[in-house]
Amino acid sequence: MNFKDYTCQDFCEILASKAPVPGGGGASALAGALAIALGNMVGNLTIGKKKYASVEEEILACNVQAEKLRLRFLELIQADGDSFAPLAAVYRLPSGTEEEKAIKEEKLQVALVDACVVPEQIMECCMEALRLIDIYEAKGSVMAVSDAAAAALLAKSALSAAALNLRINAKSLRDRVIAEDILGRMNAWIAEGDTLADEIYTRALNKLN
Amino acid sequence: MNFKDYTCQDFCEILASKAPVPGGGGASALAGALAIALGNMVGNLTIGKKKYASVEEEILACNVQAEKLRLRFLELIQADGDSFAPLAAVYRLPSGTEEEKAIKEEKLQVALVDACVVPEQIMECCMEALRLIDIYEAKGSVMAVSDAAAAALLAKSALSAAALNLRINAKSLRDRVIAEDILGRMNAWIAEGDTLADEIYTRALNKLN
Repeated sequence: MNFKDYTCQDFCEILASKAPVPGGGGASALAGALAIALGNMVGNLTIGKKKYASVEEEILACNVQAEKLRLRFLELIQADGDSFAPLAAVYRLPSGTEEEKAIKEEKLQVALVDACVVPEQIMECCMEALRLIDIYEAKGSVMAVSDAAAAALLAKSALSAAALNLRINAKSLRDRVIAEDILGRMNAWIAEGDTLADEIYTRALNKLN
Repeated sequence: MNFKDYTCQDFCEILASKAPVPGGGGASALAGALAIALGNMVGNLTIGKKKYASVEEEILACNVQAEKLRLRFLELIQADGDSFAPLAAVYRLPSGTEEEKAIKEEKLQVALVDACVVPEQIMECCMEALRLIDIYEAKGSVMAVSDAAAAALLAKSALSAAALNLRINAKSLRDRVIAEDILGRMNAWIAEGDTLADEIYTRALNKLN
């Protein structure tokens, strides 16, 4: 069964278990889905209101993006779990002889690069979520501004939580050019995403106070 | 149906809709459940390991607390939704005459105080989650330290997201003694929780690097 089809209760139960997946990566993808869903809620509370007629078209366009992004995040919960299997298989390879060690190390290096794909995708989705939440907070219904603020908080935490698997994988990469490339993108996303999330949250708090 | 029994996909879909609940409060409770589930996962990856035999008893005790707390968070998703209904009912009361206005305002003041109960409970649970995650990070398996870090990030965002409903309700409270009391507790939790979450996250990153 796909992780997105588990009930919230059951998903949390398998997350809590010692099963390797879902783990921090899957939890970050679900947190990202919650974040963009909250943003989308702000959009849905904005459209059809006279007061916001001038931004209606822009909000409708954001809603289309937000729905796609929510479904993408939900798929990434499963993708994150699936992408762990090849890495786990490599870790189980024998390493008794020097030859076995060399083969295992070579396969590990390939598997580590592959295992970075999904966490990077989750981070990219978090960035896209924050850009949409930015618009929802700025132009959406002020009645729902606290939901935009909550969305920004959740997207920010999902962004840094997804990055943790990149940090782990990059650490074991022997090819430092690839590793620094991955870490460079990761750091740029966190710097940009944290700043944007803090801006959204601060603006929302100012409207609430 | 109880919100915890929705699939992750369906929960995110109703969260995204313009239905007033679930909203930021429910999302924060689910994020809290994800956080403590990740902490619990660290605990479950720690017990039964020779290397961690000296902390086994403490971790087992944490696991009991973590499981209770996860179920409590999941119930609070629904409780947050349910606690919005009385407030919404008051907002729908007529306010045409001075008498109606006075009655509505009086009922509103009572409903606002009541509506602070569940958000405060979510915040308290986030604080308890962070205290457990602190132990899991410090004493649990270092192999799962990234999951403890992700847990701290999610619990921190859930804490501040839950606080948003307190900010809104407290703002409309005429009784400033009650309002300041609520906001005082809220600010203390955020100050303590943010500091603790940042400490856990920093310690975990140091182990990862």
